Amino acid sequence: MALADRWLLPDGVDEALPEKASQIEYLRRNLLNLHESWGYKLVIPPLIEYLDSLLTGAGSDLELETFKVIDQLSGRLMGIRADFTSQVARIDAHCLKDEDVQRLSYSGSVLRTVPAGLDGTRSPIQLGAELYGHGGLESDLEILSLMLETLRVAGLEKLVLDIGHVDIVSGVIDAASITNVEQVKLRELYKAKDLPELEFFVAQLDVPEHVKSWLTALPRLCGGNEVLSQAAAKLDGVGESVSNAINMLNQVVDVIQARFPKVGWHFDLSDLESYSYHTGLVFAAYQPGHGNAIARGGRYNNIGEVFGRSRPATGFSTDLKTLVSLSQPSVEKKLRVLSPVANSAELWAKLSQLREEGYQVVEQLDSNVRIDMFDFQLVNVGNDWQLQAISK
Amino acid sequence: MALADRWLLPDGVDEALPEKASQIEYLRRNLLNLHESWGYKLVIPPLIEYLDSLLTGAGSDLELETFKVIDQLSGRLMGIRADFTSQVARIDAHCLKDEDVQRLSYSGSVLRTVPAGLDGTRSPIQLGAELYGHGGLESDLEILSLMLETLRVAGLEKLVLDIGHVDIVSGVIDAASITNVEQVKLRELYKAKDLPELEFFVAQLDVPEHVKSWLTALPRLCGGNEVLSQAAAKLDGVGESVSNAINMLNQVVDVIQARFPKVGWHFDLSDLESYSYHTGLVFAAYQPGHGNAIARGGRYNNIGEVFGRSRPATGFSTDLKTLVSLSQPSVEKKLRVLSPVANSAELWAKLSQLREEGYQVVEQLDSNVRIDMFDFQLVNVGNDWQLQAISK
Repeated sequence: MALADRWLLPDGVDEALPEKASQIEYLRRNLLNLHESWGYKLVIPPLIEYLDSLLTGAGSDLELETFKVIDQLSGRLMGIRADFTSQVARIDAHCLKDEDVQRLSYSGSVLRTVPAGLDGTRSPIQLGAELYGHGGLESDLEILSLMLETLRVAGLEKLVLDIGHVDIVSGVIDAASITNVEQVKLRELYKAKDLPELEFFVAQLDVPEHVKSWLTALPRLCGGNEVLSQAAAKLDGVGESVSNAINMLNQVVDVIQARFPKVGWHFDLSDLESYSYHTGLVFAAYQPGHGNAIARGGRYNNIGEVFGRSRPATGFSTDLKTLVSLSQPSVEKKLRVLSPVANSAELWAKLSQLREEGYQVVEQLDSNVRIDMFDFQLVNVGNDWQLQAISK
Repeated sequence: MALADRWLLPDGVDEALPEKASQIEYLRRNLLNLHESWGYKLVIPPLIEYLDSLLTGAGSDLELETFKVIDQLSGRLMGIRADFTSQVARIDAHCLKDEDVQRLSYSGSVLRTVPAGLDGTRSPIQLGAELYGHGGLESDLEILSLMLETLRVAGLEKLVLDIGHVDIVSGVIDAASITNVEQVKLRELYKAKDLPELEFFVAQLDVPEHVKSWLTALPRLCGGNEVLSQAAAKLDGVGESVSNAINMLNQVVDVIQARFPKVGWHFDLSDLESYSYHTGLVFAAYQPGHGNAIARGGRYNNIGEVFGRSRPATGFSTDLKTLVSLSQPSVEKKLRVLSPVANSAELWAKLSQLREEGYQVVEQLDSNVRIDMFDFQLVNVGNDWQLQAISK
């Protein structure tokens, strides 16, 4: 293998050199601080787990995306986490017996076997929050607000919020009383947004005309705020779950618009891009000009059931590397001091003192240091060590 | 599979719940800040790489400890990192073309197929620093001092520093002019510290008596500071590399004792616990009562050669989880405020303000919140929201 080959990283895997690494660390701290100020407690789930545990509940969608290895100690299969959600659900169900509402946050690397979306990354640094034990609209609003606040603190405010509710597609399909095979076909057509094929398929179904109009109206219900009133009209009579979901979306718009007036809105009521474990409100934030969602979340009640504790839950996650590449945060740098090698107790004490005061102090190990990289030089004046500004 | 089984984590894999997670995060920030104040730049190497790249140079000792997976995109083998050293060496060799001394630091999870040492962890959170481009004693002293300062900042000062130099064993074995097979056997006996077997083995070697006395003296050269003068006497005449190494150890003791007077010393001149890639001074810090080294490091020149750039290098690493379990740092907590759900613009603004001022503000989503967990309650007085202390 040639030298050059050893330098190549696998597709979708990257590293952060000092400039970018300091931006990621800066954002990570600011965002975890934000989550703490909202009452979210940090947890650090393991990078690897038994596959049974990792892929239950919320994880089952991630089977193909999860790297698997054999545990040499037990002979069992383990998986490298591809997502935090099922891990945090396990922690809520198993480790934190509290009956109260539980707010948890996390940040760390995940790995995926295949690149996700247009970014093509297989090694995001996820950061997110989950709220357990409350099923009402208030917790949806809290998580959605925290997601938008997270993006605001990251420097991203001109966002488009894509929002929907899983009950709308389900409600329309349930109301149609069609066979399972037909349901599957219908969901495929919604997912592919193949309108001509959909019209053709629906026309042949053995259902009343008004049901046909619901089924074909659904994928056209996408666009700005006007979609919600159109939906109320066109899906009138489908059932309570659909009208409740539309009402809920209206309430969300009212509250979030007041809190985050700069955010744009997009509705796509036939959207099925969310994970299959979602059970209610689902949302994703987009930055205009960037093809992929930069944060996404939603409600996924009862995910902890497989771990012996069924609770309502909602949460969101984002990728620190994506946020940094979009916002390029400017990180304040310490003032840099160049010092001779500390070969006396006095100089060593001086270096320690300067470092504690917030300077970055570097001992000059070789003669060809580029002195213009520094702000000060530590020089011996009389019996004292003093900072001398370096003119540039 | 029973519910209970889904909760079990693999041996040597653990998770950090809120209390411990906040301690780890606290320590991580303090230590990365420390490294920054010494001029070390953060890098974030990828969690996964092609195996060829990961296991060259410093990584070759880690073949058995590295989890391997197939890259579905290229069909090539990839490895999850078991250590940072070879990754950071690649970054120095490939990405940072600077001819100056390069100081890099890192922190992140690594995975190992088998538990390491008595701690038995397979998923440490490593933190460490590496210095490239300087081969003199000054950089050994800088890295060793930074390691001890790292442990001091972590709250661990009563340490024993175990220190040696790979040239001592090599020098003695070279001077003996024995066969390769005999060399391997001899190193095994040193490693096992099997003194009776060693005496027996050395007695049968076809070497002069004074060489035999060197070979049998070596494993007995272990203990406190007195070892260095004993070594100078008993290994007199072995060769320049050995006397240089002993001199170097004496210089290290002089400087480090002045800087870290609380640190105890232990020498074991036949110790071979270091990695095979080490080329000079090697050291490890122990906490009395804790069986495993809590930090270790040393010189490993020319490790970047396989990546096309051969430079002197030295570095150290430690495990944040171990440090936290030993020092139990106390993390300052924010004052906690319980607020009604923010269903007005005024209350929302007040929550945002309090959070920015450093309070932790939690919206009360359900009625059975334990109010004694909070310091303040946000109450509506007249037309204003005010903090009211909660009596306990």
